[in-house]
Amino acid sequence: MRGSIGSMVLERLRHSGVSRIYGVPGDYNLEFLELIERTPGIEFIGTCNELNAAYAADGDARLTGIGAVLVTYGVGDLSALSAVAGACAEGVPLVVISGMPPWHAIQSRALVHHTLADGNYDNVMACYRQFAAATARLHPASAVTETDRVLHAARTFSRPVYIQFPSDICYVDVEVGTPPAMEPQFDPVLVERAADLVVRRIRQARQPVVLVDALVRQYGLVERVQQLCAQYGLPYAALSTARTIMAETGPGWLGAYGGRASDPHVADYVHGADCVIGLGVRFVDSTSGYFSQEIGAGALVDIQAFSLTCDGLDFQGITAAALLDAVWRKLASLPHTRAEPPPAVQAAVPSAAQAWEQAAFWSRAEAFLRPGDVVVADNGSSMVAMLHARLPAGCSLLVQPVWAAIGYSLPASLGACLATPHRRHVLFIGDGSFQMTAQELSTLLRHRCNITIFLINNGGYTIERMILGPQASYNDIANWDYASLPAAFGSGAAPLSLRAGSIAELDAALVQAAAHQGVAFVEVGFTPMDAPPAMAAMGQAVRRYDYGIETPDLT
Amino acid sequence: MRGSIGSMVLERLRHSGVSRIYGVPGDYNLEFLELIERTPGIEFIGTCNELNAAYAADGDARLTGIGAVLVTYGVGDLSALSAVAGACAEGVPLVVISGMPPWHAIQSRALVHHTLADGNYDNVMACYRQFAAATARLHPASAVTETDRVLHAARTFSRPVYIQFPSDICYVDVEVGTPPAMEPQFDPVLVERAADLVVRRIRQARQPVVLVDALVRQYGLVERVQQLCAQYGLPYAALSTARTIMAETGPGWLGAYGGRASDPHVADYVHGADCVIGLGVRFVDSTSGYFSQEIGAGALVDIQAFSLTCDGLDFQGITAAALLDAVWRKLASLPHTRAEPPPAVQAAVPSAAQAWEQAAFWSRAEAFLRPGDVVVADNGSSMVAMLHARLPAGCSLLVQPVWAAIGYSLPASLGACLATPHRRHVLFIGDGSFQMTAQELSTLLRHRCNITIFLINNGGYTIERMILGPQASYNDIANWDYASLPAAFGSGAAPLSLRAGSIAELDAALVQAAAHQGVAFVEVGFTPMDAPPAMAAMGQAVRRYDYGIETPDLT
Repeated sequence: MRGSIGSMVLERLRHSGVSRIYGVPGDYNLEFLELIERTPGIEFIGTCNELNAAYAADGDARLTGIGAVLVTYGVGDLSALSAVAGACAEGVPLVVISGMPPWHAIQSRALVHHTLADGNYDNVMACYRQFAAATARLHPASAVTETDRVLHAARTFSRPVYIQFPSDICYVDVEVGTPPAMEPQFDPVLVERAADLVVRRIRQARQPVVLVDALVRQYGLVERVQQLCAQYGLPYAALSTARTIMAETGPGWLGAYGGRASDPHVADYVHGADCVIGLGVRFVDSTSGYFSQEIGAGALVDIQAFSLTCDGLDFQGITAAALLDAVWRKLASLPHTRAEPPPAVQAAVPSAAQAWEQAAFWSRAEAFLRPGDVVVADNGSSMVAMLHARLPAGCSLLVQPVWAAIGYSLPASLGACLATPHRRHVLFIGDGSFQMTAQELSTLLRHRCNITIFLINNGGYTIERMILGPQASYNDIANWDYASLPAAFGSGAAPLSLRAGSIAELDAALVQAAAHQGVAFVEVGFTPMDAPPAMAAMGQAVRRYDYGIETPDLT
Repeated sequence: MRGSIGSMVLERLRHSGVSRIYGVPGDYNLEFLELIERTPGIEFIGTCNELNAAYAADGDARLTGIGAVLVTYGVGDLSALSAVAGACAEGVPLVVISGMPPWHAIQSRALVHHTLADGNYDNVMACYRQFAAATARLHPASAVTETDRVLHAARTFSRPVYIQFPSDICYVDVEVGTPPAMEPQFDPVLVERAADLVVRRIRQARQPVVLVDALVRQYGLVERVQQLCAQYGLPYAALSTARTIMAETGPGWLGAYGGRASDPHVADYVHGADCVIGLGVRFVDSTSGYFSQEIGAGALVDIQAFSLTCDGLDFQGITAAALLDAVWRKLASLPHTRAEPPPAVQAAVPSAAQAWEQAAFWSRAEAFLRPGDVVVADNGSSMVAMLHARLPAGCSLLVQPVWAAIGYSLPASLGACLATPHRRHVLFIGDGSFQMTAQELSTLLRHRCNITIFLINNGGYTIERMILGPQASYNDIANWDYASLPAAFGSGAAPLSLRAGSIAELDAALVQAAAHQGVAFVEVGFTPMDAPPAMAAMGQAVRRYDYGIETPDLT
């Protein structure tokens, strides 16, 4: 079958699961935008800027499996780069398409705008190569092959990919063929041998535990792992990069694990295990209590996307999915005699304190959450609080603990809302984070998203104050009239916007927000050093690691 | 003399002319921020995000000669990259300092946040290498040498430079020495020979003209060139990348030159010249009416920062400054018999039309400008209008025609306001551009900047509509209540914010704004296809160049 290169790209995107493309128009991507506007089943979502577009696509991808971004060359793709690097760090597949100057300009090294005007057309590509699983510059002679190659890489490695799409070839007619198989290859014999090893380790284990990381989300392994844990009575814990992927309410759920920063009963159980079935486990400073994991020597059965390392042996040429299938098959014939792990601790009793402090706020925020909510929390107080919260069944928690960019969560919420419009979304974000990407609140309003936003106003970068400069002016930010922004950014009916400065006001606001359809905005204000309890310990750990000092006043 | 690495960097920055550092705190740059806070003569200006910080530094640098940015690693420097690339494209020296993870983490390839958590600490550097004249990662053993090297490169090549500053070495004590000479080297004999050639060409010329580009700003050549033109009766024109660098009101001023997109009398004069003294001339699509320059064969005397190309000869090892000095010395002894060029056209008579259209707005906006104003215009309608406006004596026009990033102008205005607080600043910006970086309005308010902002609300990306998709929904954006934003973003006294939808309202608003100290905000609304006259021709040129089509409906 023949078709235009533009329509082929759109068809391949849809085949990969893309139904929304976030971005900003620019003079090199307009023909492709014209085509999107005429194509059913795929929608362009304009955002205020390109960084926000990529964050939105990231939020969408975490719930749907893949996200897409369309920007223009230079000014657009470079503005999105940090968000794309974030998706790379967190293992989120994004397809970033950059409308590029026409081939005749590239070939003649013409000095055009949105470049350095020095004839160099390779510098943006050099940047994206650092943060993409694959990159391509489309040419009529190979556009189909190249598109298939990069989309395959996005799926296979669950990472961003980058496509440069010169402006003058969108309507070039080519033989489009059919998309190739997306499944990664593996060697079945190696998988059997690897599975035997894993099964032996599980059978011999005195105290086994499954440790879940983002791999389980990336490769759609939830049901396999859930089934395995349930049937064989294997308790499981999740790193902060993998929260809410597995059920967090049943008997097998041990709790969130992050080295010595976790609840002691979780840390003790994982550290005491003689068999830790790791699913994509990666210990990062921010997810391991600054490398305080104490997994016993030889205890880790390290299952990664395409490898197993166990008992000093390393298997390549497998996939985690095939390995888990084989393990399940071999285990299913064994008696299930595993003892139950200790029950997870119960949810904290909501603080009855009537003092207007964050502790009181977070216990009420936790009680506000309902089963099935999508909870998004920005870096800083919000993420720390939510990673320590007990979430109702079926909630999805979207956080970015590795790349850890403040400002991520507001645009990511946009993507989440459009990906799962029938779920309620709840965003927790601090004032410093909010100011980074605040304009995307207007896009949430424009699409009448179903979201409650809690804006925690504590006058600046409290997470930095916890590290250094508690009174330093560089950690202060301008105090906005946040609650007036939903009206300023919206057009039409005034959205629900409330400000709470006492327990009574908060309780009233929570009732109103819970009953509201669409965007509800609740500003809560606290003093600069009021934060969730875990923040002080985190600040101290960072201070020691980054600066080698114990107290902020030693310098 | 000995001192800490951090204080050495600050001292070298001040020596290079930096007195403000724009940026955002992050956990890897806090000790350096502590030091800035204690250091007189250098100030940290917190911005809402890092892209805006780099734009602000760019605006500052265009008025002061150099700008500086402080961000944190990964999330910060990558967010600023597009703005830094813009400074590179436009020849603006910026010093970008990134607080990086500590050396012990780099050396052990530790998996830390703000990286891909794969042990790779080279990927951000690989990006910055594409857009910087020099880069360095500071190490105690060579921090002084490295700092001097990159600052020398920033000055010499008038381009951004990038410094990675690991968090754990700020207070390491080293021998700081003295900063080296900043003047670029040249060969005096070659300069004399090159000058002889230039002088011969000027003397033989029937119709000489000087064509000014950014070089004159970058290397502080204004007085030399102004003097040369005045004394020898050489008329001069300026590319859009060099507007208001030279006086635009005296007799030698021919007008703005941009190929066939310029006023016919300017284009005809330049195209008819047999000797075009080019000062850093670079013809970019957006600055040359899509390469419609018709400089006579052999007419160009191409003076660049460190070279001369003339009569098929090429000289390296010179500097433009030394060459101009030598030319001046040799010419000063010659009789000045040059005929005067045709007088520049007079300012357009302000339109008396009372129809509420952009034409009426721009003629009034032009009349609003006063001698000495700093005028900032965003890409799109605003830049097109201002590049065609006649500006009062002593005005500075800040535009970004090569990198051409929408959203540049609002944060750039912040840098301009802080660089020249005693001048009045006037910003023209469209709604699409404004939404990109809108939050920085709060920083303008926070610093009580002296600026009048004209927000041209035409419901989306009119510059794109002129190219393709005049009715397409992808060119629509959300309609904000713009005039309410100054109150929402400010704290304290309500700033002046007005909305004009008729000639009478505009005239009243202009009177109020002219009398106001601090931030004045004026929203004016127009229909989506109402634009300055030159926009339609530009749209057509882009459509032909990017897509090879004449009309938007052919596709």
